[in-house]
Amino acid sequence: MRITMDENATVNTAGEVLALIRDGRARTRAELVRLTGLSRATVSQRVESLLGGGFVYEAGEAPSTGGRPPQTLAFNSDAGVVLVADLDVTHARLAVADLSGSLLAESTGEIDIADGPDRVISWMLEGFEALLDRVSRGSASVRGIGIGVPGPVEYSAGRAVSPPIMPGWDGVAIPALVQKVHPVPVLVDNDVNIMALGEYWTNWRDRVDDLLFVKVGTGIGSGLVMHGRIYRGQNGAAGDMGHIRVPSAGSVVCRCGNVGCLEAVASGAALATELRAMGVDAQGVRDVAREATGGNTQAIRMIREAGRQIGEVLAGAVNLLNPGAIVLGGDVALAAAELVAGVREAVYERSTVLATNDLRVQTSELNERAGVTGAAVMIIESILLPVAVDEAIRTS
Amino acid sequence: MRITMDENATVNTAGEVLALIRDGRARTRAELVRLTGLSRATVSQRVESLLGGGFVYEAGEAPSTGGRPPQTLAFNSDAGVVLVADLDVTHARLAVADLSGSLLAESTGEIDIADGPDRVISWMLEGFEALLDRVSRGSASVRGIGIGVPGPVEYSAGRAVSPPIMPGWDGVAIPALVQKVHPVPVLVDNDVNIMALGEYWTNWRDRVDDLLFVKVGTGIGSGLVMHGRIYRGQNGAAGDMGHIRVPSAGSVVCRCGNVGCLEAVASGAALATELRAMGVDAQGVRDVAREATGGNTQAIRMIREAGRQIGEVLAGAVNLLNPGAIVLGGDVALAAAELVAGVREAVYERSTVLATNDLRVQTSELNERAGVTGAAVMIIESILLPVAVDEAIRTS
Repeated sequence: MRITMDENATVNTAGEVLALIRDGRARTRAELVRLTGLSRATVSQRVESLLGGGFVYEAGEAPSTGGRPPQTLAFNSDAGVVLVADLDVTHARLAVADLSGSLLAESTGEIDIADGPDRVISWMLEGFEALLDRVSRGSASVRGIGIGVPGPVEYSAGRAVSPPIMPGWDGVAIPALVQKVHPVPVLVDNDVNIMALGEYWTNWRDRVDDLLFVKVGTGIGSGLVMHGRIYRGQNGAAGDMGHIRVPSAGSVVCRCGNVGCLEAVASGAALATELRAMGVDAQGVRDVAREATGGNTQAIRMIREAGRQIGEVLAGAVNLLNPGAIVLGGDVALAAAELVAGVREAVYERSTVLATNDLRVQTSELNERAGVTGAAVMIIESILLPVAVDEAIRTS
Repeated sequence: MRITMDENATVNTAGEVLALIRDGRARTRAELVRLTGLSRATVSQRVESLLGGGFVYEAGEAPSTGGRPPQTLAFNSDAGVVLVADLDVTHARLAVADLSGSLLAESTGEIDIADGPDRVISWMLEGFEALLDRVSRGSASVRGIGIGVPGPVEYSAGRAVSPPIMPGWDGVAIPALVQKVHPVPVLVDNDVNIMALGEYWTNWRDRVDDLLFVKVGTGIGSGLVMHGRIYRGQNGAAGDMGHIRVPSAGSVVCRCGNVGCLEAVASGAALATELRAMGVDAQGVRDVAREATGGNTQAIRMIREAGRQIGEVLAGAVNLLNPGAIVLGGDVALAAAELVAGVREAVYERSTVLATNDLRVQTSELNERAGVTGAAVMIIESILLPVAVDEAIRTS
């Protein structure tokens, strides 16, 4: 139950306070109070914390409006950076961001997650060095690191848990490997969770409390934002949509050993297999996307049908969760608008009237940057809000 | 994301602090600190709030263990009561509870929710008067009222929203009707939500953060407890499982106008129809339960099959949400252990290995008292914790 809070209260964070100062939108505590809707006491507390961490500094007195002139606040662009990585099965994106979450530099690369943690993490760390060079920062400026990986994660330990497509990673605590080089806070989460977080934070948090992000790539997974935060479940396995049965899928056998799983019929891997059966040279999800964007009508038809099947499963999720938005990302979703059209078709056919009343279904606006953006949000908020929240919040 | 809190932190509330004092398990602030794991400052704050509200009083000095002797705390049994109601389609349960949530007296009655708010609320208010008489309390001792109704509710306003089986209630703000007689805080929620809350609070909160309560009665609905609190979704419609498609249900037409809905094949209403087709005089869910408990093997077979179909839908919910527990309640679930057996069969067949690793599936321990217990928890916590929680909690 949620008694003591307004259901529609705006999410306001230390990161947001910092962004307002950095962007020059707020120059004093009074302006922060007005723009955030936070109490004067809370704003003062956040500002003290930002001053204490060296993230902002007092830049002199503003003109008085009567009484003691207020101190202006300025963003300390030398306060440091965070490093972020969105590691997928076959490719990865790295970035360096400032402490308000703006990406300063990025790189991408082909990887094979099955090479195991030692090789992949080494590659990532080298990539981080190159990025730091590009923005002329040293290791000492790194305040934290955020990483997404394509499998379930025990979040508190940054440990991959029985990841089906990450051989060699099971039980590996990723932060320890990273901290050998960068002795700073390191947070690791499932890649779809960070994509959901990035999308929510950037485009949705003023409008909805609850969002379901679905990534349609080699596999199919989802990230659940509820009450404005990532929902992980008992074993960090929440959002694993790929093995839900699709009523219309019949008895197609899935790699998990079950039949009729969504992933067996509508994932990028399944679509590549279908395309190969038609004589198209499609090895993986990138080839499916290439065919679709190149105008292969068979590929587009398949993607629309995959959208309908994903929609059949999402219709159940909409009835159960009544989210404010469904956002579709991943290579397949980004390649063809037909995917979201198929999803809408099935969701609006099968979900209840009340649950679809305000529902928005659309593709990711951050596209391939959703992951690194979310990883930056994750680690920055952790750095800026280190204070333990009172236990009271667990009771609402 | 959830950065600043321990995922496994114990839920501790003003209600729990009060219960520890009432039960004599904690007699001093130091004992409360030890038993709850809360900080000394937080315990002091909670105790001050309870003292201020007259819920506890200082009963004299305890023996000193060196230094100033601590004050003992005692429960003020005269501090008042709450009234609670679990209104279902055809029957209702009313209770009066003390402020630690113990039920002092109860009554039940047959109602027809379709009689509309005026008649049903009048009946409820008369029942409340009779209960207050039984425990020799006057109207002045009532500190709050909690009510569950069988349809979606806009929680903040206590307003029923497009309830499909509550004609005449749409848009009605229930608190205003109740407050004409009792000018106290009144909270209204969906009946399955309060059942989920009662079950979670009483039996699960020390073990899991996330629980799915499924009520199999005339219809089928569910209540989602996530991070220890009720999850409602964008329109208060979360948990509406009854119209999710069951892969094995074929093309049975549902009253919602769709085909293959869970409710059309596995609800108490559907089972009663099936029994009537076999010549059994079964008008409603109570008759289905009567046949099953009376040993009618056809009824028991049907309930097991209904369990499998509910399990097919729950298998998807388990993959998506990875809850720690599924608890089954409602007349059909309570009538025959075969329902939970059928659910387990389908969930363990269809859900992923990781998501079912620690999953417990069982029937309600509170049975028909889950609703009134949850309604009491809902209103008591609201009375005891009126302080606004800092906005920081929304950022985690």
